[in-house]
Amino acid sequence: MQICHRWNIPVVPRGAGTGLSGGALPLSNGVLLSLAKFNHILAIDPHNRTAKVQPGVRNLAISKAAAPYKLYYAPDPSSQIACTIGGNVAENSGGVHCLKYGLTIHNVLALKILTMAGDQISLGGTALDSPGYDLMALTMGSEGLLGVIIEVTVKLLPLPERAQVILAAFNEITKAGAAISGIISAGIIPAGLEMMDNLAIRAVEDFAHSGYPRDATAILLCELDGNNVEVSYQVHKVKKLLSHYGATEIRIAKDDQERAALWKGRKSAFPAMGRISPDYYCMDGTIPRKRLPEVLAQINKLSQEYKLPVANVFHAGDGNLHPLILYDANQPGELARAEQLGAKILELCLAVGGTITGEHGVGIEKINQMCIQFNADELQQFHALKAAFDPKGLLNPGKAIPSLHRCAEFGAMHVHQGKIPFPDLERF
Amino acid sequence: MQICHRWNIPVVPRGAGTGLSGGALPLSNGVLLSLAKFNHILAIDPHNRTAKVQPGVRNLAISKAAAPYKLYYAPDPSSQIACTIGGNVAENSGGVHCLKYGLTIHNVLALKILTMAGDQISLGGTALDSPGYDLMALTMGSEGLLGVIIEVTVKLLPLPERAQVILAAFNEITKAGAAISGIISAGIIPAGLEMMDNLAIRAVEDFAHSGYPRDATAILLCELDGNNVEVSYQVHKVKKLLSHYGATEIRIAKDDQERAALWKGRKSAFPAMGRISPDYYCMDGTIPRKRLPEVLAQINKLSQEYKLPVANVFHAGDGNLHPLILYDANQPGELARAEQLGAKILELCLAVGGTITGEHGVGIEKINQMCIQFNADELQQFHALKAAFDPKGLLNPGKAIPSLHRCAEFGAMHVHQGKIPFPDLERF
Repeated sequence: MQICHRWNIPVVPRGAGTGLSGGALPLSNGVLLSLAKFNHILAIDPHNRTAKVQPGVRNLAISKAAAPYKLYYAPDPSSQIACTIGGNVAENSGGVHCLKYGLTIHNVLALKILTMAGDQISLGGTALDSPGYDLMALTMGSEGLLGVIIEVTVKLLPLPERAQVILAAFNEITKAGAAISGIISAGIIPAGLEMMDNLAIRAVEDFAHSGYPRDATAILLCELDGNNVEVSYQVHKVKKLLSHYGATEIRIAKDDQERAALWKGRKSAFPAMGRISPDYYCMDGTIPRKRLPEVLAQINKLSQEYKLPVANVFHAGDGNLHPLILYDANQPGELARAEQLGAKILELCLAVGGTITGEHGVGIEKINQMCIQFNADELQQFHALKAAFDPKGLLNPGKAIPSLHRCAEFGAMHVHQGKIPFPDLERF
Repeated sequence: MQICHRWNIPVVPRGAGTGLSGGALPLSNGVLLSLAKFNHILAIDPHNRTAKVQPGVRNLAISKAAAPYKLYYAPDPSSQIACTIGGNVAENSGGVHCLKYGLTIHNVLALKILTMAGDQISLGGTALDSPGYDLMALTMGSEGLLGVIIEVTVKLLPLPERAQVILAAFNEITKAGAAISGIISAGIIPAGLEMMDNLAIRAVEDFAHSGYPRDATAILLCELDGNNVEVSYQVHKVKKLLSHYGATEIRIAKDDQERAALWKGRKSAFPAMGRISPDYYCMDGTIPRKRLPEVLAQINKLSQEYKLPVANVFHAGDGNLHPLILYDANQPGELARAEQLGAKILELCLAVGGTITGEHGVGIEKINQMCIQFNADELQQFHALKAAFDPKGLLNPGKAIPSLHRCAEFGAMHVHQGKIPFPDLERF
């Protein structure tokens, strides 16, 4: 870092490279700093329920190392078998269970980072709160622009005594949406609350044979976890609520095998798209829960307008949408149309009071939409803050935060997603 | 703000002024900007469970306004009847229930701030996550140094169906400490888990008549909340654990009246000190839970060395200590000795891997201890970050983050707590 700093060479930190918005893409004129081989678990402290790990440790490897103590690390992005904890911190990753257990920011206690100048800084701590500015929270989700993450101390949680999955089918999206709000309003926070629309259900069922009802307009998967008596009570209550909101079928996993089968479908939803489309483009926007039905209706309209099918698989409890735009890159114009449709969906999320990313980050993919979500004062504050860490702008340049120049062009010249210039060309 | 910025006049934002570390103390050469009269609740959204309020709204007023919807705002500092939400954000306040429900940072969704230059910036949002740097998290606990908080959107939680308090008495501090760890290790997160030592118990009992056992070496107050069946189960489990760890007495509040009586003692612990000492000095350090017994033994030793009694009342579940140093300001030298003892206690917290503040902030009180907790690189990063928001250093100068010059003096010349120069004199 000191050498790159001295010679003004850009540095892009990278973990497993599983990110979905291009945050760790290398630059033609910079160093790609891979942290993947820093993969040692440094300490597990079962008493204080913490694990101190190097940045290249895989997400799932932490839970495996903690399992002998009946502990685990809660955030579980779908890529958890491969993605690294350093990347999770850089993107503030979520997952199926973040409705109840929070994002990465809620499960990390301390960080060590290297600044662009090569100084080592310790952030956060294992105590409840820390004085000074909360640089640790600031680093979460900063997509490699503020520092290189070199050590992470995470919180571990006790493995729940029991977990129970309920599948509910609906013949109207609106009813499924009302059921989600109903469950949350009743004071129940499920460990996971996922929704799939019919196009997704059919693709998944053909691929994973989870036993999903193929004709349902939408299904919900609701996982409840905790101690035995608490789960029994919640299952009872959720069943009643689902009936009340008009579920046409309610199925409770009889055993761990059936539970695994129900989740397998959800977890293989993305690969399952390969059966029905040669390519797909996964979006990641967040909306207020109550706007769900109207946003899904709007996405459906946009899908018809752009002549591309959209399958919806998402973290319904959080309002975190993952519309999967299906296209064929070999058909001239389809990729560009898919990207335009994606951009429209993100702008729709903003229009109802949401954000352009739930858990996948901005990277280079959504950098233009940042100009819509934030005004010039706000973006200028972001740049001032970046300069406080990296005055030369050498760390992961061109990602996550657009220049005001780019926003002016995006706004004035109507440059759409299909024509993003390579971000490194802009700066250098 | 624009006028002050133009004419280089320091500004100190202030809410109710209930802070315990002097963060909102005025400067002799600056403007004191009171936000206390911005006290309107702008919107309550029961569906999304949020409240949008002005910064001068009192903490308890939010819960009162949300009560018709069976919702409340969780963080509950002891000063909640008077302190404002803007101050809570500035200090990242906690309270008895933050063990389960988190600090202010975990319960605020969005902020509007004014920068020193007078620009208005929106931070965070009601959606799950937000792109860009997490300036909202950064603003939490920044003690008025980065911006003036002008609007706060908080998360509301459903009022629990039932809350149950258990009192347990112990004849050894070590046993009480082990019981705390035992409860947390068993996977139970109480809504509150408080501890008091004998000196505190006796003072409180004489004042509040809560029915505390006067002869116990320590008592624990453990509150469990949630739905009915869950609470019954947890009460049963906690009772067994308390017996297992050697509680000499276990008492479960029979009704809401008895529950209120048990809490009344805890909540009036600070004023109760007036019965046994003309003055007290409340410290606020955080330590890893497992170091509790040895730290209390060390505090006892320091108390004897400095010849001042120390009563301990604290958030045991979080490891957040509140040693109350009892002294008499009319006795020459006692105030200085109390301050020296306080500084020693904070340094002890750091030595066992803790921090110098749990929830009361740094302000001017603990600014020297910041030089021990952070190294020069880390402090320099803090200053760079401050400059990104307020390059002229006009917002609340001299608070929270020490200059490197101050730290050099503190370290090299052994300037102790008793001789802190007024912080505004240093800079201006």
